[in-house]
Amino acid sequence: MGVFNVELKKVVDDSYEIEIGYELMNKLVEDLGRGLLGGVRKLAIITDSNVQELYAKPIGEKLLQAGFKVDLFVFPAGEKSKTRETKARIEDAMLEKGYRRDCAIIAVGGGVVTDLAGFVAGTYGRGVPFINYATTLLAAADASVGGKTAVDTPLATNLIGLFNQPKKVYLDIAAWSTLPKREMISGLSETIKHACLASEDMFEFIEENLEDILDFKRFACEYIAENNCKIKYNVVMKDERESGLREILNLGHTVGRAIETVSDYRLLHGEALGIGMTAQVLLSASLGYMSEEEAERVIALYDRAGLPTKIPEYIDREALVKKLYTDKKVRDGKLRFVLQKGIGDVVEFAPGVYAKPIEEELVREILMEM
Amino acid sequence: MGVFNVELKKVVDDSYEIEIGYELMNKLVEDLGRGLLGGVRKLAIITDSNVQELYAKPIGEKLLQAGFKVDLFVFPAGEKSKTRETKARIEDAMLEKGYRRDCAIIAVGGGVVTDLAGFVAGTYGRGVPFINYATTLLAAADASVGGKTAVDTPLATNLIGLFNQPKKVYLDIAAWSTLPKREMISGLSETIKHACLASEDMFEFIEENLEDILDFKRFACEYIAENNCKIKYNVVMKDERESGLREILNLGHTVGRAIETVSDYRLLHGEALGIGMTAQVLLSASLGYMSEEEAERVIALYDRAGLPTKIPEYIDREALVKKLYTDKKVRDGKLRFVLQKGIGDVVEFAPGVYAKPIEEELVREILMEM
Repeated sequence: MGVFNVELKKVVDDSYEIEIGYELMNKLVEDLGRGLLGGVRKLAIITDSNVQELYAKPIGEKLLQAGFKVDLFVFPAGEKSKTRETKARIEDAMLEKGYRRDCAIIAVGGGVVTDLAGFVAGTYGRGVPFINYATTLLAAADASVGGKTAVDTPLATNLIGLFNQPKKVYLDIAAWSTLPKREMISGLSETIKHACLASEDMFEFIEENLEDILDFKRFACEYIAENNCKIKYNVVMKDERESGLREILNLGHTVGRAIETVSDYRLLHGEALGIGMTAQVLLSASLGYMSEEEAERVIALYDRAGLPTKIPEYIDREALVKKLYTDKKVRDGKLRFVLQKGIGDVVEFAPGVYAKPIEEELVREILMEM
Repeated sequence: MGVFNVELKKVVDDSYEIEIGYELMNKLVEDLGRGLLGGVRKLAIITDSNVQELYAKPIGEKLLQAGFKVDLFVFPAGEKSKTRETKARIEDAMLEKGYRRDCAIIAVGGGVVTDLAGFVAGTYGRGVPFINYATTLLAAADASVGGKTAVDTPLATNLIGLFNQPKKVYLDIAAWSTLPKREMISGLSETIKHACLASEDMFEFIEENLEDILDFKRFACEYIAENNCKIKYNVVMKDERESGLREILNLGHTVGRAIETVSDYRLLHGEALGIGMTAQVLLSASLGYMSEEEAERVIALYDRAGLPTKIPEYIDREALVKKLYTDKKVRDGKLRFVLQKGIGDVVEFAPGVYAKPIEEELVREILMEM
């Protein structure tokens, strides 16, 4: 018989605002009251056990007072909760409370919360709107731009998920100081990575103002929040589906993600990334894309920030090498790495190609020395 | 501080072809060999235990011969398999077999397979391409146009899912005759629904050629396959996100979906829809949108087709009424129905509004009489 053509060409506008500031709870409630989400009156706040009391409950109460139907959906804090099972439990709890397709989701918390809640929003009723209220530097660096949402599975991190854009993002810098120091430092890891791949100026700023950042000095936090957004936005804008350029944001993550999993999440994401970035600069230097001195400078900054740059004793290096093959950049069974070009740039191996196949032997050598 | 604007406006082209014909396995392999999916060489065939031997394996073998990496992922046939758990099992099996973001999914089977596989494709590696090879009339009517994918949960059917467009759809009419008669008749239910909501001509065609359809006469099957696509396409084209017009495809589903769940899937989807359509025409007639005669004509056609038009004894009617409130059209706690206007049209209650709030009492009365 015949062929029937389904024409589905259209203009999609997923634009949104990122609001950067101190104590943005009232601003969020104000925006919602003014119709940021149109006529939506039912709001599911998804949060974790750490953020529940400090931010999620107060936001929920303010929204209740403003006349919204609000419920809190809380899961235990930590990367270990970023699973399909947690997603299913939240969905069932929302269904139980009568949430249908006319609701919206507000993610209040760090990167685990925004990753998970954005994924829930993407498949609840085949998609409901969502807002990110990011309370950590990591979420500010990682979850504000790009629309990547996901969960982890026993066999891979972040491989099940969606591209899903929020309706608005709030980066509450005041919340950063409520984080345990270890979490704050972990968050800084992605910020240093951004500087490494896109801005030597930013790298120098962090070198010069590291103590002020760790002391939550406002000028320093604002600088990094804004520059994180700018760098990520410039990359993501040019490649929303992560086909080429966007892979550069994966700098340091080949080893980082693997070690995070093999450590069974004893290492925080940013800590694992510190080790992954170290492996990456050693690899980049050994292939001549940066000098030994530049590699040392990057490692020194991670060290000064208090991030690990050596593989902990308890990590089985063979298991780590094996885990590398679950990386999403693997093609035809070959490991592929994004590599740094000096400080503030990455190597473009061919037009639009930013990940290079690397022999396992070379990676193994570097990992064995770390 | 300030506001950072993320501009994400773009043109998206999700157009695709629906190929309608007899024995399309070779055509599928040919299309893939010619680069239908670009450079993708790794194909995960998702299918169920019914279709595995007849279609999925032969397709898999042909693709292997054509040089693709192919694995079959099989789940037990039936709506009961359309769950988050089945999705997770397939994901884990694909990860185990080394499938990453550079793969594609081929759904081979009926509506349950295409619904589930399209959802897997939508979240695997944050989205990989997929193709539907539909082997049933129901899939031809339901899964070829619209991009709706989903799973069921204990509390609601089809509420967790995605809009996800396939790269191509094959409707293999030859496969219809391999279905158990009960399944074929169930599939016809959506076809009659399409006629009811959009085409009196099609309704008359089915009345006149019902026996030829059930005997798989080619002219009759071609006619309904093509007209199903046309009707759905015309509706979906105008409203891809199901905000208004698209709700008309939900005709008969308010009661249908609820009874399907309350029957614990003893009723097939199309069978439940037969009862749902009966409830709908009785409601439409009682509200004056169609004559008693027209309502009888619709019920008579469902009867002649061998579809149930009465609520089985084992259904707890109170449980059924309660279940109605899990319908996705419920707004502010009120039941909403799409209603038929004569035969071949639906009621537009206000510009762009096709679902009407209905008092529970009236629905209850009709259900108690059925």
